[in-house]
Amino acid sequence: TCGHKANIMKITDGLFLECFYEVAKEFPELKADDVIVDDLCMKLVTRPDLFDVVVMTNLQGDIVSDLCAGLVGGLGFAPSANIGDHICIFEAVHGTAPDIAGKNIANPTALLLSGLTMLRHLGFMESAATIENSLLYTLEQGIHTGDFGDKSIPSVNTTQFAEAVIANFGKKPKQGEKPSFPNKEKTPTNFKLDKNPMLVSAEMENEHIIGVDLFIESIEQPELIAKKCERHAGVKFKLINISNRGTQVWPTGSIYTNLVNQYNVRFESLDDEALTQQDVLGLYISMSGNFKICSSELLNKWGSKKAYSLAQGQ
Amino acid sequence: TCGHKANIMKITDGLFLECFYEVAKEFPELKADDVIVDDLCMKLVTRPDLFDVVVMTNLQGDIVSDLCAGLVGGLGFAPSANIGDHICIFEAVHGTAPDIAGKNIANPTALLLSGLTMLRHLGFMESAATIENSLLYTLEQGIHTGDFGDKSIPSVNTTQFAEAVIANFGKKPKQGEKPSFPNKEKTPTNFKLDKNPMLVSAEMENEHIIGVDLFIESIEQPELIAKKCERHAGVKFKLINISNRGTQVWPTGSIYTNLVNQYNVRFESLDDEALTQQDVLGLYISMSGNFKICSSELLNKWGSKKAYSLAQGQ
Repeated sequence: TCGHKANIMKITDGLFLECFYEVAKEFPELKADDVIVDDLCMKLVTRPDLFDVVVMTNLQGDIVSDLCAGLVGGLGFAPSANIGDHICIFEAVHGTAPDIAGKNIANPTALLLSGLTMLRHLGFMESAATIENSLLYTLEQGIHTGDFGDKSIPSVNTTQFAEAVIANFGKKPKQGEKPSFPNKEKTPTNFKLDKNPMLVSAEMENEHIIGVDLFIESIEQPELIAKKCERHAGVKFKLINISNRGTQVWPTGSIYTNLVNQYNVRFESLDDEALTQQDVLGLYISMSGNFKICSSELLNKWGSKKAYSLAQGQ
Repeated sequence: TCGHKANIMKITDGLFLECFYEVAKEFPELKADDVIVDDLCMKLVTRPDLFDVVVMTNLQGDIVSDLCAGLVGGLGFAPSANIGDHICIFEAVHGTAPDIAGKNIANPTALLLSGLTMLRHLGFMESAATIENSLLYTLEQGIHTGDFGDKSIPSVNTTQFAEAVIANFGKKPKQGEKPSFPNKEKTPTNFKLDKNPMLVSAEMENEHIIGVDLFIESIEQPELIAKKCERHAGVKFKLINISNRGTQVWPTGSIYTNLVNQYNVRFESLDDEALTQQDVLGLYISMSGNFKICSSELLNKWGSKKAYSLAQGQ
């Protein structure tokens, strides 16, 4: 399942969703579907069993992973693995918790589970199964640090919890026992790069400039700004749209929209022909005579496909 | 409580959080605190009682409100109100659900609750209490549409549910009975604007340009790009930082970072003096001789405060 906000974040999440389905084609044996992140969060609290693997951008994955950690009992139980081509990082998702540092009261479960993921990644399948079964057995015994578990049973400290896990090596939990697969051979890597790998997109060649968004500062009304912009548009551009805080204020718009002194002015090619950077530069220079330009953004097409979202109302 | 991602989204959410505490000062009788949205989601599923009112940006509020809707039984129970100076909108948070349109099976609770909020906003306190008590009584009776409730009791359709609520007018629920406040007088508004209201920030006068981020396309290695950029920097700018997908690749960086053909190049004022738009334009023109500039972003200072975040590694 791909979790995304592609209905709103059309460029970033839209591309992410598109890539998801592109890659999914290579794995026809896996079921691929997607869900809007709002809906995902609602379903995770009502029907968490609906989901198996969720692929997300960092921004939303951060939020949803903490939500899921909450569902399984808190950050003390959430391991993580970052798998790269050359470097892997295995860590608990919780932070360093400086407020309890040195007090010997942390719950080591998340770090243990992260360690198990590392052992499996390295091929130590047998050791991982032994430790995981022992951990589950220990949890079943009701042994717990202060942050979770049955409050009627006294809690243990971090060292005692770890000692209990070690003492239980070889024991099997009643529920969720992990099978012990044979160890796998490790492939030694001493791969060394001499320059950064460059991932060149296949679509680059087809890309052409079709317009530009200019973010300007002004305390004037939209009608007056439009009049000035139309003069700057010259023979290459047409003024398409002016918006303020994401809301269209020209050519149509509500008189009740509160304006701030930051407008987005969208120009597109007058004849829908590809533009050059020189054309955009000409417009930029002309506009800068009248307005402070805070930011600019090229509008590109990849082949016949717009690589930008339409403005609200466009 | 302000929910935010100010630790990562330093400009947008950082400003939001700052404004939150600024406004909170005007209401010393209310307790103001804040929480990172990831942590908020985790706490909402484990300890929802910790929160009363949560103030958020639209992007994250969307996600968290659906999560909360899930906590109270789904979108069928979540009302919403948008309160503006001139216009108010009261609606269920769920969409139009075209897949069940015309089937008379929708759960009208969310829309009823939204209507109650509207009645109270308009001053009809007595009618609101009557309807809400009747709705709660009806729910206590176990009357339910197909989307929720005890599956051993047959569900009713939308019309039957509404009829039950009407039939129960005057009844009081065992739990959560709403007191009936006297109706309030309504202030008639026929306020009419002749132009958009303009909110001018008080900090505008102190703003000055201190640098610019240029987003360029290149398939060259960072070292080579830096060499070219330093030549373009001229007598006004110094090259501060080059990053690729948010990761610094110059002046320091890892050889294992995968590069895409989009770099962000940050220039700042050579002598930390304020720059003019003309200075930035000069750099833009010079850089455009070597690179395709996809987007640009002024770096401003408000007084002595940077209005932008430092790049990773800066």
